[in-house]
Amino acid sequence: MLSHLKKYHIILASQSPRRQELLRGLNIPFDVQAIDIEESYPEQLVGVDIPMYLAEKKANAFADKMEKNTLLITADTIVWHAGQVFGKPINKADATRMLKSLSGKTHQVITGVCLSTLNKRKTFHVISEVHFAQLSSEEIEYYLQNYEPYDKAGSYGVQEWIGYVGVEHIEGSYFNVMGLPVQRLYTELKRWKE
Amino acid sequence: MLSHLKKYHIILASQSPRRQELLRGLNIPFDVQAIDIEESYPEQLVGVDIPMYLAEKKANAFADKMEKNTLLITADTIVWHAGQVFGKPINKADATRMLKSLSGKTHQVITGVCLSTLNKRKTFHVISEVHFAQLSSEEIEYYLQNYEPYDKAGSYGVQEWIGYVGVEHIEGSYFNVMGLPVQRLYTELKRWKE
Repeated sequence: MLSHLKKYHIILASQSPRRQELLRGLNIPFDVQAIDIEESYPEQLVGVDIPMYLAEKKANAFADKMEKNTLLITADTIVWHAGQVFGKPINKADATRMLKSLSGKTHQVITGVCLSTLNKRKTFHVISEVHFAQLSSEEIEYYLQNYEPYDKAGSYGVQEWIGYVGVEHIEGSYFNVMGLPVQRLYTELKRWKE
Repeated sequence: MLSHLKKYHIILASQSPRRQELLRGLNIPFDVQAIDIEESYPEQLVGVDIPMYLAEKKANAFADKMEKNTLLITADTIVWHAGQVFGKPINKADATRMLKSLSGKTHQVITGVCLSTLNKRKTFHVISEVHFAQLSSEEIEYYLQNYEPYDKAGSYGVQEWIGYVGVEHIEGSYFNVMGLPVQRLYTELKRWKE
């Protein structure tokens, strides 16, 4: 599958182990490279524009390393809830605050993905709606004691205990909630021409 | 969590490795036991009644082995599409037929779960809607050549390549599509009293 991409050296510029695992699921050869940017964005941006901006910012940071046959994949995932971005928590109190706010409510998980070569760029986004059951203080405490929310947007991993007991309902792509909308990415790669 | 269940010996009677993995995600101690029944059901049953019936049939088959402190979990998952059950495929042609029929359409994945002790039984079901993108003949062939559809209702595993490239959209629980609606199960276990 995707044999028209054989001429490319596909690079995923992301430290996220979940994103790497998800891309592996598409069965295409790729390499991982680290990228280190400050995840800041213009404050007037809202919703989908934020992860699209950050996915492009990551691509821009990689510009020096692009070669003729590089096909670069960068992505950014945010939790968007009540008109605000829920990013990675800075400490336990921050994680507790986020999870209490998500409890019993529906939020959006939005991933922006940027595909780039030296000659072409395509950026898109995918939204999933996630409905959390009411979480008790004990459940939130148990999760924060036993798992690692600190590298995760919104302070939770959908593939961890909290996702098992807390996520009542998803509308959209589950893999997008994990960090990469693989079905849409596959479709975009299938259509890729330059 | 779920400390009121400590008095029970929880048994999952299921050979499905996916179901075992999903139950492990709830972080409660349990043992697995094999159960072997013929997965037949009265032909007048439709939709949700089928996996509920089969989950209870599995519980009935375990009756002899129930002890005073046993809390038994049995489950059955079906794919329901166009008024028909899509079970485990009997051969490659059957799997091809099912995947062609699911391609570009929305189907339901329904799991029936039965919780039993010697004194009490609770059976429930969870429905997830799964929308498949249009799958090409090459994609179906590639999946059937490289993966194992034969132990899977509807001939596909949502956690495999075909789920990555084919599942555009889910409405409901992703884990239910894998074979066990863990969030609902957790809620039922939390409420369990006898």
